[in-house]
Amino acid sequence: VRIALDGMGGDLGPRMVVEGTIRALARDRSLEVLLVGDEKILKREVQAAGLSDSRLKIVHASEMVLMSDGLRQVRGKRDSSIARAVELVRDGEADGVVGVGNTLAVVAITQFRLRLLEGIRRAGIAVPMPTGREHPCVLIDVGANVNAKPEHLAGYGLMASVYCEKILGRGNPRVGLLNVGEEEDKGSETAKETFDRFRHLPVRFAGNVEPHDIFRGAVDVAVCDGFAGNLVLKTAEAVAEMIFLMFRRELRRGVIRSLGGLLSKAAFREMRSRIDYAEYGGALLLGVNGVCVIGHGRSDGRAVDNAIRVAANAAAAGINERIVGSLAAES
Amino acid sequence: VRIALDGMGGDLGPRMVVEGTIRALARDRSLEVLLVGDEKILKREVQAAGLSDSRLKIVHASEMVLMSDGLRQVRGKRDSSIARAVELVRDGEADGVVGVGNTLAVVAITQFRLRLLEGIRRAGIAVPMPTGREHPCVLIDVGANVNAKPEHLAGYGLMASVYCEKILGRGNPRVGLLNVGEEEDKGSETAKETFDRFRHLPVRFAGNVEPHDIFRGAVDVAVCDGFAGNLVLKTAEAVAEMIFLMFRRELRRGVIRSLGGLLSKAAFREMRSRIDYAEYGGALLLGVNGVCVIGHGRSDGRAVDNAIRVAANAAAAGINERIVGSLAAES
Repeated sequence: VRIALDGMGGDLGPRMVVEGTIRALARDRSLEVLLVGDEKILKREVQAAGLSDSRLKIVHASEMVLMSDGLRQVRGKRDSSIARAVELVRDGEADGVVGVGNTLAVVAITQFRLRLLEGIRRAGIAVPMPTGREHPCVLIDVGANVNAKPEHLAGYGLMASVYCEKILGRGNPRVGLLNVGEEEDKGSETAKETFDRFRHLPVRFAGNVEPHDIFRGAVDVAVCDGFAGNLVLKTAEAVAEMIFLMFRRELRRGVIRSLGGLLSKAAFREMRSRIDYAEYGGALLLGVNGVCVIGHGRSDGRAVDNAIRVAANAAAAGINERIVGSLAAES
Repeated sequence: VRIALDGMGGDLGPRMVVEGTIRALARDRSLEVLLVGDEKILKREVQAAGLSDSRLKIVHASEMVLMSDGLRQVRGKRDSSIARAVELVRDGEADGVVGVGNTLAVVAITQFRLRLLEGIRRAGIAVPMPTGREHPCVLIDVGANVNAKPEHLAGYGLMASVYCEKILGRGNPRVGLLNVGEEEDKGSETAKETFDRFRHLPVRFAGNVEPHDIFRGAVDVAVCDGFAGNLVLKTAEAVAEMIFLMFRRELRRGVIRSLGGLLSKAAFREMRSRIDYAEYGGALLLGVNGVCVIGHGRSDGRAVDNAIRVAANAAAAGINERIVGSLAAES
């Protein structure tokens, strides 16, 4: 599998992207990476890291999108590293693209250059959230589309259901609509219309759900607009970070606790990696005609490696062909 | 301080409310409680609990609001326990009211029977969220008002700032506007107008913030509409619950871990009580002309006790007089 990777994105810069690439190439012997960005900078980083692998190629792009760039700036940068990386997918030179950093830029460029899948009206970002059970719950959309209409949400439900079944291996996934203040929303026309649409979709519809249902694993897919999904994702990350910080602090108070902390260290480490979104996640942009994974703005090497893995898996599994097949079966 | 308490609300029923009352009366010798609801049921529960205290009085109400009741049903139940409890505050017979259960019913009844404070256009629910630092961050609104206008949000910022300063003892609190997908919202007129209003409020405005800023304690107040606030609150509860569940499970795997878990048990317990929202929280409805605290629908005795404590503190500190004073100073 060949993945095009934006080498210039992210808060932490090209060094982290190169570090992630090294990890990915070491992990997966069948992987090839096209690293896109300023040739000079990327070559220097690759050399500094001591990497020399014929499976890595550098593709030059003269511009880069900044974290702070708005859509207008993004459109103006026609030769940005992320735009070039997306074009490699469009032109069949790569099987998938990984963009790190400015989420809205990646979404806009990908929707524009790859176009949408037949039957899909809007792309959405899907993230598998860890739950109290063995299986994750796929949350869609976490930020591509903050003004989602009922038909967009219906598309999200269908696509995430396919993702769950074909990539995460979860048969017959339950799909819920994320809702809060149920009493208030009962009356809203949009909420009613969305609910109604879902009852007629070829998915296993579980009705309205709340955040508890996500983290208890009561559903396999939770559908919402990008505003709500982004809040849930970012709150989950922040609360997990806070709790681990508190634990570390508490377990330093006194000899007995320190010993306790030491003995339970392995358990802590496993837990952390299970709920660490950098490790776990990998945000797949579903609905565009090509595989696209969006890395966190604060992505470190491990997160970049993971994003590459998710993109490679999605490409290998033919996620988009399966979604199109499922849509065709419906109509 | 005399607190009127809805004895019939909540998923867990009168028994939990009575248990909470017993805890509260034992904790605070200056407290009086007016327990409102079906006299027969409440008397039986009080007797069963072996409670006999002249500081507890039962006030009869013939109806009760169910968790599933919509606003129409709530309006029809004129002699509901929560309506009677609110009237005790309106008529000066109690210094504050605690309602447990159907949040929207409590908000609607309280706004209607107590009216709003002079200068306030909409009530909002404020919850102190635990953070990685010593001080909490007050999140407002967590569900009273899902269609908040800029002037409502401005009122929330002012009121929560007073709450932080006068009740939580946090001088000169920093007030942030909760925002997601900053890039997207920059353009929205509502977001711009709200931001502008905050720049002219007599609060220490910290600009737009994200969930991370709440849980790192980077601000003392985070203002948002009831939809966003409810998602953040419920996600935080759900993630904390999930992590503790995972820990319990991980620490049972093998002898060394079990020992480690045993030795760090005290640390766990302290942590839990710090981030347990039942213990910590107590949702204060700010903006109504009277003190009102809303307990969680799943409230147990400890949560009810805590809600009573928050109401008594707010009443004793004269929260509403201070808010009105602050509003008067502004204009």
